[in-house]
Amino acid sequence: MAEALPPGSTIGILGGGQLGRMLALAAARLGLKCHILDPSEDAPAGQVSAAHTVAAYDDVVALKRFAAAVDVATYEFENIPEAALDTLEALVPVRPNRRALSVSQDRATEKAFLAGLGIAVAPYAVVDNLDALHQAIGDIGTRSILKTRRLGYDGKGQVRLGDADQAPAAWEAIKAAPAVLEAMIDFDREVSVIAARGMSGPVVSFDIGENVHRDGILHSTTVPAQLSSKQQGEAVLAAGKILNALDYVGVMGIEFFVTSDGMLVNEMAPRVHNSGHWTQAGCVIDQFEQHIRAVAGWPLGDTRRHADVEMTNLIGDDAGGWAGVSDAGLHLYGKAEARAGRKMGHINRIIRSDEP
Amino acid sequence: MAEALPPGSTIGILGGGQLGRMLALAAARLGLKCHILDPSEDAPAGQVSAAHTVAAYDDVVALKRFAAAVDVATYEFENIPEAALDTLEALVPVRPNRRALSVSQDRATEKAFLAGLGIAVAPYAVVDNLDALHQAIGDIGTRSILKTRRLGYDGKGQVRLGDADQAPAAWEAIKAAPAVLEAMIDFDREVSVIAARGMSGPVVSFDIGENVHRDGILHSTTVPAQLSSKQQGEAVLAAGKILNALDYVGVMGIEFFVTSDGMLVNEMAPRVHNSGHWTQAGCVIDQFEQHIRAVAGWPLGDTRRHADVEMTNLIGDDAGGWAGVSDAGLHLYGKAEARAGRKMGHINRIIRSDEP
Repeated sequence: MAEALPPGSTIGILGGGQLGRMLALAAARLGLKCHILDPSEDAPAGQVSAAHTVAAYDDVVALKRFAAAVDVATYEFENIPEAALDTLEALVPVRPNRRALSVSQDRATEKAFLAGLGIAVAPYAVVDNLDALHQAIGDIGTRSILKTRRLGYDGKGQVRLGDADQAPAAWEAIKAAPAVLEAMIDFDREVSVIAARGMSGPVVSFDIGENVHRDGILHSTTVPAQLSSKQQGEAVLAAGKILNALDYVGVMGIEFFVTSDGMLVNEMAPRVHNSGHWTQAGCVIDQFEQHIRAVAGWPLGDTRRHADVEMTNLIGDDAGGWAGVSDAGLHLYGKAEARAGRKMGHINRIIRSDEP
Repeated sequence: MAEALPPGSTIGILGGGQLGRMLALAAARLGLKCHILDPSEDAPAGQVSAAHTVAAYDDVVALKRFAAAVDVATYEFENIPEAALDTLEALVPVRPNRRALSVSQDRATEKAFLAGLGIAVAPYAVVDNLDALHQAIGDIGTRSILKTRRLGYDGKGQVRLGDADQAPAAWEAIKAAPAVLEAMIDFDREVSVIAARGMSGPVVSFDIGENVHRDGILHSTTVPAQLSSKQQGEAVLAAGKILNALDYVGVMGIEFFVTSDGMLVNEMAPRVHNSGHWTQAGCVIDQFEQHIRAVAGWPLGDTRRHADVEMTNLIGDDAGGWAGVSDAGLHLYGKAEARAGRKMGHINRIIRSDEP
């Protein structure tokens, strides 16, 4: 416990979106302060934090000042430029570490890393040009998705194929960016493990949630997921392998496809994850506090669940229904503009045993 | 719903202590901003709010600026000077209203108000001078407590009698301030009703919690309280009468003594209350969000409880044990100095049915 940051310490967070906001609210409960670095003046996390540096992620002067003002730095999204880490790491601990970030920034690196641990992933091929795409379609088939290696989220940077003739259009749609072609998986369900590893090494997981996506964006997560105990064990074991292999500190979200042949990892995110928002209603210590505890060197929190929960995202105009939600946990992110496809909030509804 | 303040609106809070801090965190979940007015630079609520005016409660210029910057004003403590309300009320809605504040600022007024509603209170007498104190002791007996009418909290401004000879010393101890003498009550237990009333009039209550005090300060609250359904009904009915009579908007905490002869109101606080902190772990919508919902004109939240909870205060040095709490909801208030008797945080522990 020598390394634990006492209450009153400051956690620096790169990125001030909703995940940063909910991290800041969790840190506040523990008497810790937050300092956000985000280029946007009205970043959601800035409104609820003790300090907010409005600066680009490549602003070296701002990064240095930020590093000097915080006791540890963490991040709410994985697309932090490498140069920002060069600057920060020299001045302040960054958790999770750089390897976790670089592995998960690139789909090809991530899949190779997972395969190297003996963890199953969907068949894939690295695609650097149109010829390679044709070759990959030959190997993997046309029931496949072309995904940029970097900077994709919420279905962006992805094109479904269906016919080999669509290759040139798909390649153009992703702007000829380095990519991977992934086989489409016939999965029974998609589930998430929200795992955490502390400074002293233990890995713990929340109960597994079951995800439903719509239009490439997470729509809902329900706990408990419908899984056999063998499947649960397989997923939690894979999570443990991943976090240990990366010497990880913090919370990680890992999405799995559940198939008749076993569990495949779809993707991993080195941060709190949308599919872990249900923990706010179902556990006394949620994923946001868990992450703060880990990066501050505190003992990890109890992950036991005391209620079944359904989390539903509020996307775009969905958030306009706020006045109608008074029997569930309503979370709105403080975003002024409700653009289509933008995550505006979510609802955590407790599934009560006395109800159908 | 025409009066509901939409997400993005600003709630002004007079007072930036732990109650203001937890109100601000609850408002943030709903996408509402908070603006704190508090004389202290490092007020706990200031660290987590979009704006903080550092000013005294009698600074008219600051109050006017504050009023112009917020959409509604509320308060986290009842000892707001009347003059501050004069200034604010002319410029912005203040909820709960002034009558609620003035009734609860003065123990004598409060008791007369309750008695006027037919709600039982402990036998008491108003004491304005030493002669009146002797007279009151004659009427009420020596098993009694002398309490200042104004500005008392956490056992401050109170002296227990025991012998009529102690009257002069007691009168001196409270610095000859206007006071009431209250009969000591042989109560079986002390319980709290945390009730709320919305803009359109409905009154709802959380489940009743049972309080244990130590050294005049709340030590713990446990839900459910050990009460018959008749006793529960009596307390909730009294709460409804009080909130309706005051045309109240917001959350109120009401402490009751449970005696073999019935329920007596001990005191009421026109604000969120320490004995309602358990709602953070036991309900999807806690007392803080409930208060914000009420003052923002939103529909009141569901008060159903999904878990049994024991809340324990961390007083003074108790908070030094933070590193040992990883299986319960830990709340630390961001106060730098752990003075004796100072409320530094609290713990919400879920009482699980599979445990003793």
